[in-house]
Amino acid sequence: MSTKAIRKIVPLLDRVLVEKALAQKTSKGGVLLPESAISKLNEGKVIAVGPGARASDGSLVEPSVKEGDNVLLPDYGGSKVQVDGKDLFLYRDDELLGLIHH
Amino acid sequence: MSTKAIRKIVPLLDRVLVEKALAQKTSKGGVLLPESAISKLNEGKVIAVGPGARASDGSLVEPSVKEGDNVLLPDYGGSKVQVDGKDLFLYRDDELLGLIHH
Amino acid sequence: MSTKAIRKIVPLLDRVLVEKALAQKTSKGGVLLPESAISKLNEGKVIAVGPGARASDGSLVEPSVKEGDNVLLPDYGGSKVQVDGKDLFLYRDDELLGLIHH
Amino acid sequence: MSTKAIRKIVPLLDRVLVEKALAQKTSKGGVLLPESAISKLNEGKVIAVGPGARASDGSLVEPSVKEGDNVLLPDYGGSKVQVDGKDLFLYRDDELLGLIHH
Amino acid sequence: MSTKAIRKIVPLLDRVLVEKALAQKTSKGGVLLPESAISKLNEGKVIAVGPGARASDGSLVEPSVKEGDNVLLPDYGGSKVQVDGKDLFLYRDDELLGLIHH
Amino acid sequence: MSTKAIRKIVPLLDRVLVEKALAQKTSKGGVLLPESAISKLNEGKVIAVGPGARASDGSLVEPSVKEGDNVLLPDYGGSKVQVDGKDLFLYRDDELLGLIHH
Amino acid sequence: MSTKAIRKIVPLLDRVLVEKALAQKTSKGGVLLPESAISKLNEGKVIAVGPGARASDGSLVEPSVKEGDNVLLPDYGGSKVQVDGKDLFLYRDDELLGLIHH
Repeated sequence: MSTKAIRKIVPLLDRVLVEKALAQKTSKGGVLLPESAISKLNEGKVIAVGPGARASDGSLVEPSVKEGDNVLLPDYGGSKVQVDGKDLFLYRDDELLGLIHH
Repeated sequence: MSTKAIRKIVPLLDRVLVEKALAQKTSKGGVLLPESAISKLNEGKVIAVGPGARASDGSLVEPSVKEGDNVLLPDYGGSKVQVDGKDLFLYRDDELLGLIHH
Repeated sequence: MSTKAIRKIVPLLDRVLVEKALAQKTSKGGVLLPESAISKLNEGKVIAVGPGARASDGSLVEPSVKEGDNVLLPDYGGSKVQVDGKDLFLYRDDELLGLIHH
Repeated sequence: MSTKAIRKIVPLLDRVLVEKALAQKTSKGGVLLPESAISKLNEGKVIAVGPGARASDGSLVEPSVKEGDNVLLPDYGGSKVQVDGKDLFLYRDDELLGLIHH
Repeated sequence: MSTKAIRKIVPLLDRVLVEKALAQKTSKGGVLLPESAISKLNEGKVIAVGPGARASDGSLVEPSVKEGDNVLLPDYGGSKVQVDGKDLFLYRDDELLGLIHH
Repeated sequence: MSTKAIRKIVPLLDRVLVEKALAQKTSKGGVLLPESAISKLNEGKVIAVGPGARASDGSLVEPSVKEGDNVLLPDYGGSKVQVDGKDLFLYRDDELLGLIHH
Repeated sequence: MSTKAIRKIVPLLDRVLVEKALAQKTSKGGVLLPESAISKLNEGKVIAVGPGARASDGSLVEPSVKEGDNVLLPDYGGSKVQVDGKDLFLYRDDELLGLIHH
């Protein structure tokens, strides 16, 4: 729907830009699932990672995740930002719960 | 109910992935227990442990528990995550109350 | 009432496992005391002590109490856990108010 | 409307002076957009940057952004100040979420 | 009223055991004072002092008061404990306001 | 209205004594402005500056502003004091938002 | 009104004992002032000063004020104590706003 050029977000400090996974609305076989069967998804893919928080000695603390990682997200927290029609979320590195390996 | 491949959660930082023990609904002899006799369980098994929190000098602080440990859980806290139909819980290492040796 | 083997709780970090003293319901001479005469007890016996909290340099800070100590407990705080039918309480070492010498 | 000479704001410490982007009220083709189609804008341009916060050793921590940067702003926070008829916002460097590259 | 042996409380860490001064209910000349003339007393005598709080380097910080000191108490704070029929109060060393020299 | 000798306030630590700019009640041309046209002023002049906050090593951290500076003030915060009939405000150095150069 | 011997308060740590200035109820010329003309006084005289707060290395941080100083007091804070019929106030050194030189 957006026709303007794609913008690139570079998170600051220890922030991580995440695209949440969408809940499946149909079963594997294509049958439409009732609302109650769609579990709340706490999964996302890392789109971009900031340089890291500053340690007390001024050095940067490397983030725990990297671009492309599948991450487990907390129920609360994160700042929603709209980038080119997509809802993305910014979390602090420390807020991410875990990595998901498929 | 889930047919997708098993996913593996690797906790980040000092987080610990725990599977709560299920309350027994039958007595040792097999008799169905009334609800009031089922004590609230604060016990779980450690499924996976993160690398540890970062100390102020950047080094990692080794977690107090390891995979397979039986742990005493606090009444509150922990983030519920659903992994392949199972309810699992992520706690920070510091939130776990004790180890249970049977 | 419990027939399963005795479980042993080993507190984590600076936690202390305490069994609260029971309020006397009869006087020294055996007479049943009215409710109002039974003072609220803030006394307990230490059952087990964790290895201690971690100092900022990673070393362990030795707890102030040891197994068997009689301790003065705060009015609030502590996590109740049920172990083999007994109500026990976990306090952080720092929450305990004093030692009681009889 | 103001006729007095232009004033220059120099932010103190780690503060960043930001001019928020204005929401487009017409579509690219010039059609007036209904209110609901105007997304809340979290984008701004950095007008001026303070010298940085003081580290515990007294040295200054260089801010993460510089004059002219396009920044992603949080939904809440920031102090509105009116300078020569324009609404500007002061954020602490740490509150800014990310850089936006067009 | 209590017949059991006297118990001795040894405060832990930086806690101080204080016996509050009782408000005089008669004037110096023995006349019973009306309630309004009895000022709220914020004075107490130190009964026992803990070994002191732990500094960040693990050493103990010596408390500011010692057994027998008359101390000025804050209006709020302190944990009431009942020891052998007497109401005593435990304060953290840092909560005590001043020493009173008669 | 006050006839007593002028008192001098010397702020303590990192406090800054500020005299707020008065809102103009007439336009440049002398026409009385309606209330709605008088913008809330967040501008003041520094009257006196304390020696600075103490750093953790005991040294003083030099304040960011000096006597005579025009400063941008936050909407909230600051302690109002009345000195010789004038309302002055004390801010902590860190609360001041920016310097204003005319 | 008090006949007991004068008691001396020695503040602990970084506390400062202050006697608030009394609001003038008559004008300089002796005319009784209406209530509205009596400004709330935030001025006091330092009666006694504690040895200072403890720095993280255990040394004492010298207080910013000394006995006899006229100090500017915050609107809130401070603990009222009654000493020999006088209302005195204890502030932490850091709470005092400024020195007043007449």
